[in-house]
Amino acid sequence: MKKVGVAILGLGVVGGGTYKILRDHAEAYRTNHKLDITIECVLEQRRERIAELGIADDVVCSSIAEVVSNPDVDIVVEVMGGVDPARSYVLAALKAGKSVVTSNKELYCKYGYELEETAKKHNCGLFYEATCVGGVPIIRTLLDNLQGNEISSIMGIINGTTNYVLTKMSSEGMSYEDALSRAQSLGFAEKDPASDVEGYDAVYKLSILSSLAFHTKITYDRIYREGINNVSPVDIKFGRQLGYVMKLLAIAKNTHSGIEVRVHPAFIRADHPLSSVIDNYNAVYLSGDCVGEFMLYGLGAGEYPTASAVVGDIIYCASHLNYNYSPFCNTEHCTAKISDNFESSYYIRVEAEDKSGVLSKIASVLSRQGISVARVVQDDAGKGAVPMILVTHPTRENSVKKAVEEINESSSGAKVMSIIRVVN
Amino acid sequence: MKKVGVAILGLGVVGGGTYKILRDHAEAYRTNHKLDITIECVLEQRRERIAELGIADDVVCSSIAEVVSNPDVDIVVEVMGGVDPARSYVLAALKAGKSVVTSNKELYCKYGYELEETAKKHNCGLFYEATCVGGVPIIRTLLDNLQGNEISSIMGIINGTTNYVLTKMSSEGMSYEDALSRAQSLGFAEKDPASDVEGYDAVYKLSILSSLAFHTKITYDRIYREGINNVSPVDIKFGRQLGYVMKLLAIAKNTHSGIEVRVHPAFIRADHPLSSVIDNYNAVYLSGDCVGEFMLYGLGAGEYPTASAVVGDIIYCASHLNYNYSPFCNTEHCTAKISDNFESSYYIRVEAEDKSGVLSKIASVLSRQGISVARVVQDDAGKGAVPMILVTHPTRENSVKKAVEEINESSSGAKVMSIIRVVN
Repeated sequence: MKKVGVAILGLGVVGGGTYKILRDHAEAYRTNHKLDITIECVLEQRRERIAELGIADDVVCSSIAEVVSNPDVDIVVEVMGGVDPARSYVLAALKAGKSVVTSNKELYCKYGYELEETAKKHNCGLFYEATCVGGVPIIRTLLDNLQGNEISSIMGIINGTTNYVLTKMSSEGMSYEDALSRAQSLGFAEKDPASDVEGYDAVYKLSILSSLAFHTKITYDRIYREGINNVSPVDIKFGRQLGYVMKLLAIAKNTHSGIEVRVHPAFIRADHPLSSVIDNYNAVYLSGDCVGEFMLYGLGAGEYPTASAVVGDIIYCASHLNYNYSPFCNTEHCTAKISDNFESSYYIRVEAEDKSGVLSKIASVLSRQGISVARVVQDDAGKGAVPMILVTHPTRENSVKKAVEEINESSSGAKVMSIIRVVN
Repeated sequence: MKKVGVAILGLGVVGGGTYKILRDHAEAYRTNHKLDITIECVLEQRRERIAELGIADDVVCSSIAEVVSNPDVDIVVEVMGGVDPARSYVLAALKAGKSVVTSNKELYCKYGYELEETAKKHNCGLFYEATCVGGVPIIRTLLDNLQGNEISSIMGIINGTTNYVLTKMSSEGMSYEDALSRAQSLGFAEKDPASDVEGYDAVYKLSILSSLAFHTKITYDRIYREGINNVSPVDIKFGRQLGYVMKLLAIAKNTHSGIEVRVHPAFIRADHPLSSVIDNYNAVYLSGDCVGEFMLYGLGAGEYPTASAVVGDIIYCASHLNYNYSPFCNTEHCTAKISDNFESSYYIRVEAEDKSGVLSKIASVLSRQGISVARVVQDDAGKGAVPMILVTHPTRENSVKKAVEEINESSSGAKVMSIIRVVN
């Protein structure tokens, strides 16, 4: 029986879940994996949290120095979040020869290269499945299962908060504010929801996933970001009439004109496998040249799902002796060609003061930009300003931007109220 | 750069796909994985197939002895199918110190223990992701990602042929025979479709998956099996009216009264994630105590998807030095308690000569067996014999069997035409 000593840095939601899973499954891991996993120490200052989890005093450390100097600690689990002091703690652990398992997406996204170089130098394992999409093992799937494929695209619903809010807005007609409060009361959203609703969380994850998928570093600052905080219920409703469901999508595509990486609200067809991913569920849908279309679906956040990924990494690390797990990226900086002139179809909602002649003016603007229109819907229920919906055939972002500018500046009396990319 | 020599035994659909992927991605694997993977030899007697793939003569071997005595071969890929001679070839490779990657579900299901003991003894790797559900990496997900979970249930659509046939019967109202011919003409079904439509293929896969999930050997002969060859379009139609979709499901549940393992047609709710798995797509839906509900979705068969799994194993094997991958089972025989008294809801279709009094007689039989009825539908469009559909609350298989016997033997004039298990 192999003895494995674990230290947990931080007893927040994921740290607590990890503690409880390791404690409650210890006997199963001895039987099924021949691993005697012991929690040697925890680093946590909140005494009430330590008491809540029933952790004995002699397991509580007061400093990172105490953790990394403990010879019984083999694996350090960093589940604190944030860059500081998590970064220095992880580096200290690696330099002391401890393998590290982390759930810290911001840290890995920003400092993954430094961490991996340090792990390599000190011959330690470094595992980060829990950084992306909680219980959904997309990282190891890319590294260990689909690694023979050339991945051409990834489309993910990789933030549970925003998916919950959009589901409630879409299926129950809730307002954005009400849906967000509901998510907060259920623990699906933070008190300060900015990181989720403005798309930062999804951007960090997409940075990691696209780097792995395309074997080149995609830094988070190169990713186009648009949150759900400006989504209008009107567009959700019109989208449904057209057979679309709105989702906050994280998209990475390897195209001839460069790599597209973007997080934004998008319409997908109601019969697309991603459209049935509702509430706080997450999914990653990808295309590989060998495997074809492929999807992983599950809970992307929360105490136990995320801790499931942490514990999976602990067992993997303990079972794979002398295996340096450092394939994230060979470079620190983004050297890939990134294209922000996305190729997509577009849903364009226009309001016009009167109908006659407006469509032909809009059509001629679009035509000048080489944009061809696939569908037009006019809603005659409105009084005064009349909404008109146009859905284009696949075109380019820059052409749409120019067309929108031209429509808004023209004297046609038409104004573009919203544009939403449509996934084909 | 690490040099990796590969031998491919059998150039059928999967062998050909593996050959082409390794050939066409060789440069990418050198760049991205630092692996120089070379096909050192192939074992295949059909000269026209060798010519079709453009394989040079000096790469073609004429015997397994020639393959295993080649010092440049590190990994032997067995993609022949069937037990004989695949079993002796794999054993010969392992005894010669070669690691083995296999896609052979029948071999692994029946002789997995022997193969793993041999691999262990000779310190070789043994990998079998491609045995189950083609491009869908369910095996490594169980072993390397969700291994910290206690898995309580697996439900899979793990046979593409039957899913294609049922999809066409369900969505286009095709007859079983027409749907099967269509599947055959598209290459989704064999000329002799028995292994697929009678459920044997799914049984082999479920044997492997349930053994891995529950850490105990579940031999294929203990798995209840019912194919789709007796499915009636009438039941598919009535099911749809009740909001159900019919699928051939492979189900493994770890319950208090024993392990349930079964392959049979079943109804699932139209809003269940598995219901949207159509045509030749496959999916595995499972529940773990940490991860919650989780699903993998993709192509479960075919040249490139299955070869994607084979190549994934080759790269994994080549990258994980000195790693004995033998966690399939610790025993050869099934020692687990297997329960065939399944717990499920049931759809029961009854035909009766006249309506009056029949329902009360049937209801009283069901009640005596402790079965409570959730829904009753009578279709009055019929003339003469009148179909009546009952859907029960969760109950036990044995109670339903007894009730059906009693209804059929009574003088009520009612006859049970079909029973279909309903997944809740």
